[in-house]
Amino acid sequence: MVSHQRFTILTDQYLQQIRITEEVRKAVISSGVVNGTVAVITMHTTTGITVNEDLECLESDIESALERLVPEDIPYSHARMLHSYGSTAGNPTGHIKSMLVGNHCLFPVMDGKVVLGGAQDIFFCEFDGPSQRTYHITVMGE
Amino acid sequence: MVSHQRFTILTDQYLQQIRITEEVRKAVISSGVVNGTVAVITMHTTTGITVNEDLECLESDIESALERLVPEDIPYSHARMLHSYGSTAGNPTGHIKSMLVGNHCLFPVMDGKVVLGGAQDIFFCEFDGPSQRTYHITVMGE
Amino acid sequence: MVSHQRFTILTDQYLQQIRITEEVRKAVISSGVVNGTVAVITMHTTTGITVNEDLECLESDIESALERLVPEDIPYSHARMLHSYGSTAGNPTGHIKSMLVGNHCLFPVMDGKVVLGGAQDIFFCEFDGPSQRTYHITVMGE
Repeated sequence: MVSHQRFTILTDQYLQQIRITEEVRKAVISSGVVNGTVAVITMHTTTGITVNEDLECLESDIESALERLVPEDIPYSHARMLHSYGSTAGNPTGHIKSMLVGNHCLFPVMDGKVVLGGAQDIFFCEFDGPSQRTYHITVMGE
Repeated sequence: MVSHQRFTILTDQYLQQIRITEEVRKAVISSGVVNGTVAVITMHTTTGITVNEDLECLESDIESALERLVPEDIPYSHARMLHSYGSTAGNPTGHIKSMLVGNHCLFPVMDGKVVLGGAQDIFFCEFDGPSQRTYHITVMGE
Repeated sequence: MVSHQRFTILTDQYLQQIRITEEVRKAVISSGVVNGTVAVITMHTTTGITVNEDLECLESDIESALERLVPEDIPYSHARMLHSYGSTAGNPTGHIKSMLVGNHCLFPVMDGKVVLGGAQDIFFCEFDGPSQRTYHITVMGE
């Protein structure tokens, strides 16, 4: 059994982490899959999907850490330019952060529910907003 | 066909990489799945799952590299605090390393066995130990 | 339904990103899977699989960023040595980059096709070439 659900969100900051745990919980329940896995997958190259604790102070630590690892103020070959898919401007730092964070996360589905640890929340990470973004939730199993 | 197996381990160092390749091999064999995939998924936000070569010198290089990327001695907003899930103290560096390394790995299953390259071993990465930790091995296929 | 396909490539540079989007598209079509997921998985510990935009300037930015994060000219415990699997020399930087980038990517399969965003291409990343490399494309679903 396979269930695909597509979600569109509007980010409103350059860097932003949006909690999507509830969307994943509901997508799993509505999929009808009792036993299997759920994948959360972004459709963009300057965004990521990650798992972390939902703490405001942690969000700013993560953004600062990524900015330290991939600074804005050094020269890049990939200069700013317009993209066709709705982003305000091309950004090499967004592409590199996206590669470091990854394009998807994966979780078990048991008894019809996504299995998350007590501190785990799922986040859509914007690295080049504001923009309109799309991600998929794919539930597979029996 | 879906098989979920849950494993609990006790880490005994602040930073630690524990080889779990044999656990994955056995979980695939006992799952009865002949053809499909196996996912190894951590339940925590200051741990990771990674694939690498099993060399002691490499473990220390990886830990040093992550400490260089996410230093302990710079100010973070997320100060140390007790967690409810058994960790001795909250740690922003553990959360950031966890995001960089990722919450899971995925491998093919063929002829009833996990398919790994000759140099590939699977590791559970502790970034905020010592602690009791849980990970899932989910095998799906036919 | 499960389809495994194995691909071998020869990389010809120390650092290289090889676009494999067409291989993934064709593997999904030939798998016969209409609805499910496709995983692209590397068999090595000094390579990675990533998703990004296919722009030459971006490739050099990514390689420079990874070299900044994991410099060649600092001391590592894991000295250069011959590997059994065909690489010219062991390299600690390749192992660490591999961990940061990840061993696989995952995408939805709908209507018999891999679902990619408009800017998304799939890359095999070489971090210790030139070498002969193998990756798997595993399509699962119904």
